[in-house]
Amino acid sequence: MPQYKLTYFNLRGRAEISRYLFAYSGTKYEDHRIEAADWPKIKPTIPFGKVPILEVDGVIIHQSLAIARYLARETGLAGQTPVEQALADAIVDTIDDFMTLFPWAEKNQDVRKKAFDDILTNKAPELLKDLDTFLGDNTWLVGKSVTWADFYWEVCSTTLLSCKPDLADKHPRLRALRDRVQALPAIAAWIQKRPKTVM
Amino acid sequence: MPQYKLTYFNLRGRAEISRYLFAYSGTKYEDHRIEAADWPKIKPTIPFGKVPILEVDGVIIHQSLAIARYLARETGLAGQTPVEQALADAIVDTIDDFMTLFPWAEKNQDVRKKAFDDILTNKAPELLKDLDTFLGDNTWLVGKSVTWADFYWEVCSTTLLSCKPDLADKHPRLRALRDRVQALPAIAAWIQKRPKTVM
Ligand SMILES: [Mg+2]
Ligand SMILES: [Mg+2]
Repeated sequence: MPQYKLTYFNLRGRAEISRYLFAYSGTKYEDHRIEAADWPKIKPTIPFGKVPILEVDGVIIHQSLAIARYLARETGLAGQTPVEQALADAIVDTIDDFMTLFPWAEKNQDVRKKAFDDILTNKAPELLKDLDTFLGDNTWLVGKSVTWADFYWEVCSTTLLSCKPDLADKHPRLRALRDRVQALPAIAAWIQKRPKTVM
Repeated sequence: MPQYKLTYFNLRGRAEISRYLFAYSGTKYEDHRIEAADWPKIKPTIPFGKVPILEVDGVIIHQSLAIARYLARETGLAGQTPVEQALADAIVDTIDDFMTLFPWAEKNQDVRKKAFDDILTNKAPELLKDLDTFLGDNTWLVGKSVTWADFYWEVCSTTLLSCKPDLADKHPRLRALRDRVQALPAIAAWIQKRPKTVM
């Protein structure tokens, strides 16, 4: 088993999907959370200057979804066949494209709120409708067992619902999928135990 | 061998990376190019309403990079180890994040040009510096052989250089990597033979 060290801020954000994969698979890792005040010092020491990064026996992997996909594959949560793996990747990228629309770093709170409201009101419905259609009456988004795509939906929708609590009210199947992920014992235990942060 | 049908516009754009993987591996596929005029009719028939899509024996995979990663894995171009595959994924996502900054669909030509110039002048240098450092004096971006990350650099930088021809002048190693990709016989043949399009 390699030595894993995950570096990110003390936020769920772009690292939480990897923390779910560690939790679900019971893999030991260092959950290294840096202080915002230390970031300017740390940034120049990291290839491509962004977190999260994952160190695997000292090799640095960057990009949140590259990290998570690596962990998903190592722990059997990436999909059962090459095509299922591609479909899980596609769902993850679709959700991620949506998350990327938000101006997360905007400092002006009025501008930020206006942009968030616009996206949540005008752009979210199409994503949710398409995701709901894709899920249909299946238990999990891809194939017959849970994958990291289900985890990613739960992780991202938790943040979205904190911005707009009625966001998924028209889509009981997507809410039920959240419930199923949250009820997985290792995930339930992690949600209970993790540091409480806004994002 | 599955039946492959790749659907996109008559552009390089988000499908070209997959066309490179087909070309390099000598895999037979249908390179289906739709007319812009037909798009409104086709869009509602496609899950998540975006192209490219790849049909694999009738199963539809969406998201350009999910498609390309699937093809890269099937054809041995994804990286030689799990960590190398993660590093190739990370490089691809880093380049893709940059490409996503551009307002490709902006109709107002003044607004479009201003935004493109700003990104190419102010944001490109950091990406290029980081990529150049990552490549170092290696032949390929990841591991000891060519991967889809090298192809993605060539494909994306071709579009960027058409906007700003001196973009990579400070980075001869990145230009040489472009040359190496373009000199691969199957890629050279595809570049020669492909439909000539602006993007
Ligand atoms: Mg994307
Ligand atoms: Mg990304």
